[in-house]
Amino acid sequence: MPSLDPALAERLGELSDLRHAGQVLAWDQQVMMPAEGAPARGEALATIRRMFHDLLVDPALGTLLAAAADAEPLIVRAVRRDHEIERRVPGELTAEMSRAGSDGYSTWLQARDANDYRVFEPALARNIELARRYADCFPECEHPYDALLDRYEPGTTAAQVSDLFVRLREGLVPLISQIAMQPARQALAGEFPVSAQREIGLEIVQTMGFDAGAWRLDDAVHPFAASPSPGDVRVTSRFDDHSLAGLFALLHEVGHGLYEHGVDGALARTTLDTGVSLGVHESQSRLWENLVGRSPAFWTYWLPRLRDRFPLSLRDVDLDAFIRAINVVRPTLIRVEADEVTYSLHVILRFELELALVEGSLDVAELPAAWAAKMKQFLGIEVPDDLHGVLQDIHWSEGIIGYFPTYAIGNVLAAQLWQAARADIPSLDDELARGEVGSLRVWLREKIHRHGRLLTPPELIEQAVGGRLDPVPMLDHLRAKYGALYEL
Amino acid sequence: MPSLDPALAERLGELSDLRHAGQVLAWDQQVMMPAEGAPARGEALATIRRMFHDLLVDPALGTLLAAAADAEPLIVRAVRRDHEIERRVPGELTAEMSRAGSDGYSTWLQARDANDYRVFEPALARNIELARRYADCFPECEHPYDALLDRYEPGTTAAQVSDLFVRLREGLVPLISQIAMQPARQALAGEFPVSAQREIGLEIVQTMGFDAGAWRLDDAVHPFAASPSPGDVRVTSRFDDHSLAGLFALLHEVGHGLYEHGVDGALARTTLDTGVSLGVHESQSRLWENLVGRSPAFWTYWLPRLRDRFPLSLRDVDLDAFIRAINVVRPTLIRVEADEVTYSLHVILRFELELALVEGSLDVAELPAAWAAKMKQFLGIEVPDDLHGVLQDIHWSEGIIGYFPTYAIGNVLAAQLWQAARADIPSLDDELARGEVGSLRVWLREKIHRHGRLLTPPELIEQAVGGRLDPVPMLDHLRAKYGALYEL
Repeated sequence: MPSLDPALAERLGELSDLRHAGQVLAWDQQVMMPAEGAPARGEALATIRRMFHDLLVDPALGTLLAAAADAEPLIVRAVRRDHEIERRVPGELTAEMSRAGSDGYSTWLQARDANDYRVFEPALARNIELARRYADCFPECEHPYDALLDRYEPGTTAAQVSDLFVRLREGLVPLISQIAMQPARQALAGEFPVSAQREIGLEIVQTMGFDAGAWRLDDAVHPFAASPSPGDVRVTSRFDDHSLAGLFALLHEVGHGLYEHGVDGALARTTLDTGVSLGVHESQSRLWENLVGRSPAFWTYWLPRLRDRFPLSLRDVDLDAFIRAINVVRPTLIRVEADEVTYSLHVILRFELELALVEGSLDVAELPAAWAAKMKQFLGIEVPDDLHGVLQDIHWSEGIIGYFPTYAIGNVLAAQLWQAARADIPSLDDELARGEVGSLRVWLREKIHRHGRLLTPPELIEQAVGGRLDPVPMLDHLRAKYGALYEL
Repeated sequence: MPSLDPALAERLGELSDLRHAGQVLAWDQQVMMPAEGAPARGEALATIRRMFHDLLVDPALGTLLAAAADAEPLIVRAVRRDHEIERRVPGELTAEMSRAGSDGYSTWLQARDANDYRVFEPALARNIELARRYADCFPECEHPYDALLDRYEPGTTAAQVSDLFVRLREGLVPLISQIAMQPARQALAGEFPVSAQREIGLEIVQTMGFDAGAWRLDDAVHPFAASPSPGDVRVTSRFDDHSLAGLFALLHEVGHGLYEHGVDGALARTTLDTGVSLGVHESQSRLWENLVGRSPAFWTYWLPRLRDRFPLSLRDVDLDAFIRAINVVRPTLIRVEADEVTYSLHVILRFELELALVEGSLDVAELPAAWAAKMKQFLGIEVPDDLHGVLQDIHWSEGIIGYFPTYAIGNVLAAQLWQAARADIPSLDDELARGEVGSLRVWLREKIHRHGRLLTPPELIEQAVGGRLDPVPMLDHLRAKYGALYEL
């Protein structure tokens, strides 16, 4: 990596340091902070974020970027993009969106208490209106949703997502209805004491490729991963005694964490030493959670070790039975409880609805009915009330619109990467069956992790899988896997 | 509290938020951070501190302060003082001091490895020279040391400290030699498993007055307390199985933490919602550690509970024996291992030496000899090598000069506060013997904690004890306590 102009490097370093502080403050808030620290922490985080904004929009940064473009074109391109997008949105609009998001969150909590979407409706209408005003700041976009999506998945448009999701939906809906016609399968039952889950979880993670002194695991109500720097990755999970869900959440968050951990050290303090988009990030978490973590090869090695920890609950569970039990498909009302097959349909539903809301082709008043119709169409189930429907997710309450598609993009990309990795590493299943994931991690680091934000998501995907986002590998994977499991 | 001008309040809020971020980053660094996070954390902390500096010296802040002086005289006075002191020191000198401190620390580590002061001597000479240049920025000071001391103990001069310490030393040296003529006493022996120490430590702290949701306890190699905000106090200790030292360290750090926790909520985000000086801070930690925590009244309640935790080690230890064992006086070479009586002499020794170094009346080449002479004079012991002498403390290596006196000021003030509190709360011993400390905590909050940085240290001391720093209460306390314990 050639060296940056020192004045530019210093500014990027300051931006990186503020991001670092924000990561630590946010992690601490969810994992360590005593409850009474909340008001002061909210203020401190807001100030750190505002300072980040102020540094990023500073015209002097623009001047430095213009002067440095030839020397470091990829770094300059990425930062200039951040700079220009941030400058497009008037400070008053940003402040209004922040207030409306905070009010919307409170209103959402009230609406959930009342199990009544009508309580939430005005706040949602306000967030949609502000999202449209945000999109108006980017008149060059073909569709207002493009500007919203671009915040989370740079370089991908609503039209591309629509096309991708239509093809994905057309593959998933029939598969799910085929599965639904088969006899229902049972999930694992029994006791899985938390302390033993954490121990074997740590044992698994220790094989996955973190430097020993570069990460930690803690408990959080809503598992997440944070990364103040690539040498300081914070993974969280939530274990409970009656399910192994926490182990899969751990694999998911470690996937996120390994991405941050694997960024090229040469990008330190450039603001590029982090994941490039939410979709690419989610591809990493889903790959480890589902494609590795729910595979027979992986459990060939780990099931005997798991059985040592939980001899009573797993005594009579052989590998086939275990794989069936951790891969039960069951249409559910709640996204975060959904399985590998149905999950993306929850996302597609939300994408289609928020696209229509932003376009104005759907009125907020009609949202619950539209939600129910799609749940029926996609998963064949009835929505009994708003809590199990439109009030279940926090995102819209805070004005986070354009984010949902990245969850399904992650699933799609994970399957593309998995296909490419298996082609490049013929021994992958054998290695997993020996408890080894080194080749896979090296492959992911080479193809994805090390690049940080240096390539755009479409460039990164192109060089990793030789093409663009494509639903076929995911559909092929699901049809093969669940065709066998459910004897379709 | 009348309301501040909004523009001024916003600037003070930003300063508070940066301080908050710095506290969390520094706490996390010592308690939670994976080792490989260190380089990025160092950068992030430096940036946060530099941003704090930049905001504090901004002339616009000076203008706002000048305009607000009549409305909020005490807040404005405190912040203006910070502003003006920070502006006096040229940025290049600050940067040079920071570099020299960092180099000095590395050199100190090398010198410790070699057990050779000569390795360290040039770095110390450099730090002394820079400290003199710092002092030159404050030509109105009578003595250059005044400017150095003022960073840690605002409003107190070298002359005042010299006078205080001469009187203290003249009382302590004969007391210690009297004690040394008595038969040696034994400290506690036995096993005190860490987990049980932590449990009873938590039990004790729960009586001391933190709101339950406003603090936490963690382990740290060097115990400390941090406070991102008064509702978020982080106490640390270090327990080991062979001593109760970690329990006393816990009481010490809780004393610091209760001070931060007790600041008036009206001072939130003014930069005044923290302790006013290191000496006042240390008075709080020492009061709880020594005057409460090593008293018969306190252990009347807690010893039976401690014995329940450690039945084997404490089976034959009654209250008298326990009090004697936790109050052993023994001249030692190492400051941080010193007892309640000898501790201040370690501090006075350092003060006298650094004062002479800053004045130029002592050359760095003569420091080890001067150290050894004073150890002999004060404590009657020989210094065998540099590790047990002049190389033992980190402070000088980092250019921290003028800090040491605050440790002994804390001891002196703790005894003054203790005397005043006992006069105001006649039932104090009875309460302690019932495991209650509520009256004392309320008294300390009223006299010290709530004021934050609103009063200067001399003003605060005056209203709390009706006078200035005075060694007599401490000497009276030590003579009475150890006269009885050692049958002098």
